[in-house]
Amino acid sequence: MADVITSEYRLSTEPDLKRFVSTALEKVGVTPEDASIVADVLVAADMRGIESHGVARLEAYYVSRIRAGQLAAKPEIQTVRETPTSVLVDAGNGLGHPAGKRTMERVLQKAAQTGAAFGAVRNSNHFGIAGYYAMMALDRDIIGIASTNSTRFAAPTFGKDVLLGTNPLAFAIPAKNEPAFVLDFATTTVPKGKLEVYNRKGKQLNSGWAIDAAGVETRDPNVALKGALLPLGGFGVDNGGHKGYGLGLLVDILCGVLSGGAFGKDLPVAADPPQPGRISHFFAAFKIDGFRDPEQFKADMDTELRAFKDSAKAPGQDRIYVAGEIEYEKTLDARKNGVPVHVKVWDGLERLAGELGIPFDIEKR
Amino acid sequence: MADVITSEYRLSTEPDLKRFVSTALEKVGVTPEDASIVADVLVAADMRGIESHGVARLEAYYVSRIRAGQLAAKPEIQTVRETPTSVLVDAGNGLGHPAGKRTMERVLQKAAQTGAAFGAVRNSNHFGIAGYYAMMALDRDIIGIASTNSTRFAAPTFGKDVLLGTNPLAFAIPAKNEPAFVLDFATTTVPKGKLEVYNRKGKQLNSGWAIDAAGVETRDPNVALKGALLPLGGFGVDNGGHKGYGLGLLVDILCGVLSGGAFGKDLPVAADPPQPGRISHFFAAFKIDGFRDPEQFKADMDTELRAFKDSAKAPGQDRIYVAGEIEYEKTLDARKNGVPVHVKVWDGLERLAGELGIPFDIEKR
Repeated sequence: MADVITSEYRLSTEPDLKRFVSTALEKVGVTPEDASIVADVLVAADMRGIESHGVARLEAYYVSRIRAGQLAAKPEIQTVRETPTSVLVDAGNGLGHPAGKRTMERVLQKAAQTGAAFGAVRNSNHFGIAGYYAMMALDRDIIGIASTNSTRFAAPTFGKDVLLGTNPLAFAIPAKNEPAFVLDFATTTVPKGKLEVYNRKGKQLNSGWAIDAAGVETRDPNVALKGALLPLGGFGVDNGGHKGYGLGLLVDILCGVLSGGAFGKDLPVAADPPQPGRISHFFAAFKIDGFRDPEQFKADMDTELRAFKDSAKAPGQDRIYVAGEIEYEKTLDARKNGVPVHVKVWDGLERLAGELGIPFDIEKR
Repeated sequence: MADVITSEYRLSTEPDLKRFVSTALEKVGVTPEDASIVADVLVAADMRGIESHGVARLEAYYVSRIRAGQLAAKPEIQTVRETPTSVLVDAGNGLGHPAGKRTMERVLQKAAQTGAAFGAVRNSNHFGIAGYYAMMALDRDIIGIASTNSTRFAAPTFGKDVLLGTNPLAFAIPAKNEPAFVLDFATTTVPKGKLEVYNRKGKQLNSGWAIDAAGVETRDPNVALKGALLPLGGFGVDNGGHKGYGLGLLVDILCGVLSGGAFGKDLPVAADPPQPGRISHFFAAFKIDGFRDPEQFKADMDTELRAFKDSAKAPGQDRIYVAGEIEYEKTLDARKNGVPVHVKVWDGLERLAGELGIPFDIEKR
């Protein structure tokens, strides 16, 4: 929303940002088709207000890995197994976005034909926001699900070894006049980036966010960065930490084990220099008309979502949101007023343009 | 495990408890086939150590509602819509267990044929543990998912109105030599029963569990019982309360809206005398061999689960569990040593036997 556009942000536009991302990736050898998919996913994240998964990652997660030979610019992609209701793809250590988008497209086409389908991608890299792929279902009267395992930085309940990524799960369900229900969440309490932000600001962490390397809960961000994130629900089992841990492990199984990819201890941890991601993605889709007339369903979705939004507020609160609503409003705002890019990210993109020898022309005019 | 069998518990056996449940339900008009399904689900919960969903609920949730004419002993069950990959059933306000088990069976048969299938049941009542239905997939090399919405007692993030049930989600994934991964969890931080236990014991609640009727967090169980449960992740958004709220709403949509059943504000709250449950269930299943050879998959599942169980423990912890492991061990123990039944529940069953005029013969000899 407009209030995030402070002096820390500069404004770009959707087409300019996408063109810049595409040009940068093409410059390091990515095909125009693949580059434009990555651009679409990254800029969608910025427009939805999920800056951590947007153009801020262009250099560190994608361009620098391609230049270091750790991520294949032109991967050999293989369909490993395929049935009328399932597909398994090996991404050949390429970018996660094109492999993810094309596989979800196949899952959606299968679901449109058979009613229900599942898919997975192995040997892939970071694919941006999981919600993007789930949302591909929305205008087809299909319910979409997407997930990915990720670089390890979380510990299981009662443990201290770093065994799980933030392992997000996303669900997208269409409504009629209301914005769609889009639930896209990490199965850890907070992302690793939050520890880094608190560390820079010298702020104490909340209880329930992280442990130190010995497995003891800590509120010191610097100590936590050498330890591990806690699963959603926090430390131990009293507030349901075992539930978040169970969800994180579920994601690792559905992505890594089901695809025959890397899982558990074999997943990489953050490393410098970076290594191939070796992560996997999981997708599912099923048709609403297997149950009900989609128009009636979507009208009832409006009733359901409005019931929550219109319900009584707790003291000091003036709104109750449903999942995806904030991101939807930010997208509308970004279309109208421009896409906010943090000045540090902006400067990083300008530096990248210089390194790659490509034009830097993203400012909103 | 053996340590729960204190003087507060008496021991019965699986066949004796099942026979008693069946006899009681048949006495109030349930068919022998339906009664035996309810018995199987309830006793499975007790054997898994989930006492709150076992025979303890026989009188209050099932028998008394049938006797009060609020739950149909012999419901008219209808298949509302059916495709090769989906089925929607109207349970006719009957018991949730037979409708749930038969619908999941159809979903599993569809998945065995097509690779993937989804199902829902509307106009139903409490169906016991969601994990039971997900676990029906385990010996078929299928991944099973089950869920249900439930009587309202939780509030959305930033709200105070009671709009959501504890809305559990369950996932069952087979392994080879390791016990299966069975994740079965309420999307609230704790169940309502926990507030009642703390109220009886005069203990303070944890932060993150509940709010008062005004929407302010409370640690007083008596006040909380007039307020609402908080979603997994707790109060506000700092520890991810919006994620648990999102999961709870997801369950209400997949169960209530997708089935054309009751949802949101139309779901009943706890009432005395009780009303028809008007709840809905949701099921999904997909074949492992749509992705990989199931034997290889299950061998990798063993590797995955062992990696977590064998990982380094936090101080003071001697075990790390994976989802479903504790319940599996309790089931083995109950088979060998008897099924523990709390003395208060035991006395309640004896009273029920007297009221119904049926034999009370469940003691382990």
